Amino acid sequence: VAKPQLIVGLMSGTSADGIDAVVAEISDSPAPPKLRARILAHHHRAFASSLRKQILAVCGAGRVAEICELNFLLGRHFGQAALAVIRKAGLNPNQIAAIGSHGQTIHHLPNAATPSTLQIGEPAVIAEFTGIRTVADFRVADMAAGGQGAPLVPLADWVLFTDPRRPRIIQNIGGIANLTFLPAGAKLGEVRAFDTGPGNMVIDAVVAALSNNRLTYDRHGAWAVLGTVSNRLLNELRSHPFLRRRPPKTTGREEFGHEFTASLLGRAKQLRLRHEDIIATATAFTAVSIAGAYERFIWPAMARNALPNLQVILGGGGAKNPFLRRMLAEEISRSLSGAAGNRFLFTHEDFGIPNSAKEALAFAIMARETLAGRPSNVPSATGARRPVVLGKIVAAA
Amino acid sequence: VAKPQLIVGLMSGTSADGIDAVVAEISDSPAPPKLRARILAHHHRAFASSLRKQILAVCGAGRVAEICELNFLLGRHFGQAALAVIRKAGLNPNQIAAIGSHGQTIHHLPNAATPSTLQIGEPAVIAEFTGIRTVADFRVADMAAGGQGAPLVPLADWVLFTDPRRPRIIQNIGGIANLTFLPAGAKLGEVRAFDTGPGNMVIDAVVAALSNNRLTYDRHGAWAVLGTVSNRLLNELRSHPFLRRRPPKTTGREEFGHEFTASLLGRAKQLRLRHEDIIATATAFTAVSIAGAYERFIWPAMARNALPNLQVILGGGGAKNPFLRRMLAEEISRSLSGAAGNRFLFTHEDFGIPNSAKEALAFAIMARETLAGRPSNVPSATGARRPVVLGKIVAAA
Repeated sequence: VAKPQLIVGLMSGTSADGIDAVVAEISDSPAPPKLRARILAHHHRAFASSLRKQILAVCGAGRVAEICELNFLLGRHFGQAALAVIRKAGLNPNQIAAIGSHGQTIHHLPNAATPSTLQIGEPAVIAEFTGIRTVADFRVADMAAGGQGAPLVPLADWVLFTDPRRPRIIQNIGGIANLTFLPAGAKLGEVRAFDTGPGNMVIDAVVAALSNNRLTYDRHGAWAVLGTVSNRLLNELRSHPFLRRRPPKTTGREEFGHEFTASLLGRAKQLRLRHEDIIATATAFTAVSIAGAYERFIWPAMARNALPNLQVILGGGGAKNPFLRRMLAEEISRSLSGAAGNRFLFTHEDFGIPNSAKEALAFAIMARETLAGRPSNVPSATGARRPVVLGKIVAAA
Repeated sequence: VAKPQLIVGLMSGTSADGIDAVVAEISDSPAPPKLRARILAHHHRAFASSLRKQILAVCGAGRVAEICELNFLLGRHFGQAALAVIRKAGLNPNQIAAIGSHGQTIHHLPNAATPSTLQIGEPAVIAEFTGIRTVADFRVADMAAGGQGAPLVPLADWVLFTDPRRPRIIQNIGGIANLTFLPAGAKLGEVRAFDTGPGNMVIDAVVAALSNNRLTYDRHGAWAVLGTVSNRLLNELRSHPFLRRRPPKTTGREEFGHEFTASLLGRAKQLRLRHEDIIATATAFTAVSIAGAYERFIWPAMARNALPNLQVILGGGGAKNPFLRRMLAEEISRSLSGAAGNRFLFTHEDFGIPNSAKEALAFAIMARETLAGRPSNVPSATGARRPVVLGKIVAAA
């Protein structure tokens, strides 16, 4: 068992609102989970709105000169986020073994004739700025091996949450909802991960439309809780072919974006639904698409006697919506015909992992795997031909 | 002394006409030069003209989607070039220790508010395609350390050409002319490198203009040899302030591009020079700017008794122009007042290194240094604050 290492993880998501940085203490573990990871500090470095606009503009149609410069500029921001979280942990940079940086995705074309993906935030700048060895650019190697380059978080789910006796589903509810299924004592090859359908994307879009853009999301589910689910509309929504498609599968704005929402609102108008009913129904759609995915694709893969031990661990913004959580608990219970335990719904915080730090932690873990020469993609999740070592290693300056 | 390693070097220059690939056998050496490098095979993979156009278009104003895809597409081309040169050497990929890939520069902004540079040709794709560990993206770390990200070839000049008794100048004559000065038995910190001024850039532009674009260069100096140098015009040209500026210094099209050529041609017309005289004078300008740089910046740094041992090793397209070579020999002799030896002008081929393979070989050598954790920038050449380990390491797939 190697001694614990302190590793910084850095992540900026597609919303480009800023960088999440963690210092994690990571050590080997003799039994599953394979690693123990403890978050010593977590820091969010918000991007100024001008920088955020610059990033989003580059994602859409950036020119080479802008991309060239933004790569270096973001490198400094990532480096500063690393130093800030190290200070917050009461540590010095020379105590840190490595940085794992996801960078900022500015383009992702997994299904093009030449599949490709582009993350920026120059790791050579991070290494120079911090004096710390940096591992970065994790998605390209998975895509080079025939994968979608995403999701990469399943490895972290596996090392953090695999339990020798309990099967677990790590259910993230971001814009899109996605899960990692970990059978009890799972080997890496037994891990399954896929998108279940919309997370908050449809709810948020409906809320924005019905509030004339005064609201961006249904805080605490407070609007949905006033309404009644329209079973007629819900049944129409759940006939979406994505829900039946076999995993591995991913989805996004192409299927659940503007067009989908516009059609949902049009149909709701025909049915003369009240605003609160529409939002309740959109929320129910997320819940039933998640529970439906379990019923279709997870329960058949599980022994019936394992069900009472099942734990579902929620993450993402949707985990903070009590109305959605309640519906999800009901739908899962119903699908299991009462076979689940008394309490099966948990959050990342129940396991000592701040929800917003999870992805940054995942890249700290992946950096450690890369430095050890171990693969960290999960082929059943990304579709890659085989496990490959991800990331590029930049020496400490 | 570590055992010899077989390393592939890959390079595509700014002209984007294709990839030069070498297999080099590199071994440590007990005395200077530090390494012995022997080229086992050299292969040029030409880009189809449509691909070349695509690359040049992206360099100018490429959009993010094009860059994202071209990065992966070029990765395949670099990988194919590597496999081709390995085959040509009669070897198998599993005998190759590593690939060092420069990639394709699509932007280089060393003097912007945020200095930055961008090379593409995804190394994760090269590693996947070849199954060989790949080191790439060498320029960014030097720039992150305050350097210009160029020139990087001086390290290779140092390891290949440092002689315990002879001072040497490695004189490259590409579009721009640049030199590496290696005092006898030089330590890395004693190496000097800088641009001397125009190489073929002005000659080529004048030839194109005077031939109505029928010719792109003065093959073998055949046009210049018919003319007479105009001392009046030459003296005006050599008053260009770049020639007096102290090194380290770099130049390019900003100083010796279209505007400079147009002004030269205008002045030549006033002086009623014949076409062949103009070309002879442009060629002489390259020769005197090189010899002038030696006189100003190199001879003062050398002991007088070292001069008879001096060797100047020519490279680049200009080395193939006998008229330019002869003028250069005369100018250097003159500047040394006869102190030089009988023969001081050599080519890379005299040292067993094909001129066109030199840069690819340099990146094979740099890959080896990176894997050994050794710096490979020359701060006196790039202006970096200190020596840093260059490149990013991607594991074999």
